[in-house]
Formats: sequence, C-alpha cells, structure tokens
Amino acid sequence: MVTSELSVDSGSCRFVELTEEIAGFCSGHGDGLCHIFVPHATAGLAVMETGSGSEDDLSAAIDRLLPRDDRYRHRHGSPGHGADHVLPAFVAPFLVLAVHGGRLLLGTWQSVVLVDTNADNPDRRVLLSFLPGGPS
Amino acid sequence: MVTSELSVDSGSCRFVELTEEIAGFCSGHGDGLCHIFVPHATAGLAVMETGSGSEDDLSAAIDRLLPRDDRYRHRHGSPGHGADHVLPAFVAPFLVLAVHGGRLLLGTWQSVVLVDTNADNPDRRVLLSFLPGGPS
Amino acid sequence: MVTSELSVDSGSCRFVELTEEIAGFCSGHGDGLCHIFVPHATAGLAVMETGSGSEDDLSAAIDRLLPRDDRYRHRHGSPGHGADHVLPAFVAPFLVLAVHGGRLLLGTWQSVVLVDTNADNPDRRVLLSFLPGGPS
Repeated sequence: MVTSELSVDSGSCRFVELTEEIAGFCSGHGDGLCHIFVPHATAGLAVMETGSGSEDDLSAAIDRLLPRDDRYRHRHGSPGHGADHVLPAFVAPFLVLAVHGGRLLLGTWQSVVLVDTNADNPDRRVLLSFLPGGPS
Repeated sequence: MVTSELSVDSGSCRFVELTEEIAGFCSGHGDGLCHIFVPHATAGLAVMETGSGSEDDLSAAIDRLLPRDDRYRHRHGSPGHGADHVLPAFVAPFLVLAVHGGRLLLGTWQSVVLVDTNADNPDRRVLLSFLPGGPS
Repeated sequence: MVTSELSVDSGSCRFVELTEEIAGFCSGHGDGLCHIFVPHATAGLAVMETGSGSEDDLSAAIDRLLPRDDRYRHRHGSPGHGADHVLPAFVAPFLVLAVHGGRLLLGTWQSVVLVDTNADNPDRRVLLSFLPGGPS
C-alpha cells in the first residue's frame, strides 16, 4: 500500500477541488483502489461537477439541512458551528475510487471536492492510500 | 483486479435495482471487495430495501432536501435539474461491498440501487471492480 | 482477507460507538483497508465526533430530513418506521477506513458510530473485513 498526504488550506472556501492532486498520486501505479480520507470531524468529501454553480447549490442545501443557528447542543467556536459536526454523517469523510492503469477513474463531469463548512479551521489534511489490485 | 461495466437504461425511473448483476459479477471470485461506481455527475448509489415503497419514500425525501424549482445556480436541461447535480454529495456515486467466497455480502432486505433523479439522461454506466482479498 | 463480526445491542439508543472494537480488529494486521458493513436495511454508519452533543444534533437533523410521521408508503412496525428505511440512502451502511501498521487511521475527534433510528430491532450485526495492502 502506498500512502501520501495532501495539505489543504481551505481558507474561507467551503469547497476545495482535489482531483488533480489525487490523480497525480494515482498515476504511476497500476490497477487498484484509491482511498481518500479527511481526518477531521467537521469536513467531508464529495464527487460532483464543479465550476457550473453546483458548489453554491450544495452550500445552500447543506444550510437548509443544517441551519447555522443556535439549535445545536455541540456549541463552541463560530455561531452555527454545531452544524459542521453533523455534516460528516451526511457527506462522509472518505471516498474510494477505482484506478485503472494508473488513471483515476472519474466521469467527464466528476471532480473530487473537499466539503468544509467549518471556517474556524482552514488547515486540512487529506490522506491518500493506494491499494494495488493484484493480478487480474 | 477484475473489472466489468453495466449499461443501464434508467428511462424515467429514479431507481434501478442492480443487485443481481453485481452479485453475478462477484460470483466466481473468492474473498475481496467489490467497488461499484457511477461515472455520472447526476446519479448516486444506495443500499436499501426495495419493493415495499421505500423507493417512493426516498424520492420524496430527495425532493424535500433538493426541491425541483428554479433556486439553483447550475441551470440547464429540465426545470429543477440543478437538484440532480447536488444529489451525489448526499447519495454518493460509489459503494464498496464485501465478497465472501464469491458471494456478495448483503443483508436479507438490502439491495443495491442506482439513484438517478436526472430524467434528461437515461443512458447510465455502472463500473464494477473486484479487488481480491489475498490470503486470509 | 480477514473477517470478523460484532454483535451490537442498540437498545433504545440511536447511536452506538464502535471505534474501540474496530480498532481492536485492525490491530495485529499491517497496512490495508478495513471495510465495515451493517447488513440491515434500517441502519447506517458515520464517522463523527461523539460525546459533545453531536449525536443529539444528528438525531434532530435526521428527524428534520425524515420526519417520523405517517407520510411513508413503507408502513409497518412503530409509527414513522418508514423513515428508517430511507436513512441508509443518506447515511450509508458501509465505511472503508485505512489501516497503517495495524492502526486504524482516524483523526483525533473522529469515532465510528452505528446510526440506528429503528427502535424495533435492537439486535444488530456489524461485519468487518480487513484487506491487506500488499507490498508498498
């Protein structure tokens, strides 16, 4: 198993595109699975189209599901931060993607995106593991 | 790693049962993991009971979370299509299931379902990869 | 591939912490992926912080998304049980986590949690599979 780690500065952005870095990690390996993991309790990972407005649409949907108000029992940090702690139950912090001949298998319109509604912690780690697929 | 591809015509159906095809792909292999992936930005995969009304209940829940109106920034195709682009963040386009002795491991009431609210594109591909588990 | 099975009595609790048992299963193995699966159609798995109120916050979010009333077509058991059958589409019944040198890779604040809103069935099984990562 080959592993690597990305350091991401999510700043005030709720969405950080990671596709290129992950594809780069997978290239050079053969067939197998790429496991992507965010070791943070207030972020998730999504496979979605980017650059056409869907990030804003997802952001609004998250706020409808998890309004940023004072309803949360888990309270600390910025107002509404309790929502960030619920997010990973719905937008999980891991992905598994297939790799064929060193190529990360994604559809034409699919990107890998870090979903991070937590503005209090911009320093994020993303852990990558490549599991070789053995002989076919 | 052994791979295969299913061609699915989702027509006007939001849910397409895939269990039998996936179980067939896994049979003949030994122990390992089966990775299931939809290379489309407007569809997801779920493990759920089918045939007892839950598909309709899920359909209604998706429409509550992602109403099919003109609120979306990502606009093209049918009215409300922006919702389809948000769906994969909540209903992810991949699954990983265990295979024991060639048998896809599912509970009695679990089925694998393509969730596809996008009526504009009925031609769907589902990519299957079997990763052998090595010696136990 | 090494496998194991946990028996969980979820009783009237919607959330059961599984981290310790899963970490114990992974210890003694080297590098690889741990697949965690709930073979039930009315439960899911989440990676989240526990013990600070987020379980209650998630519980409330689930009830907002899937209100426990008589709207569901899938009707049997306790009132609102139809909601339990929709849950796994949003909180999937599987997780894949990386294992490095026998150590389950989780962030400081992350725990593995069985999410089980179904009060009708407290006897739950959780299936664990360890897939060795091969040479690095």
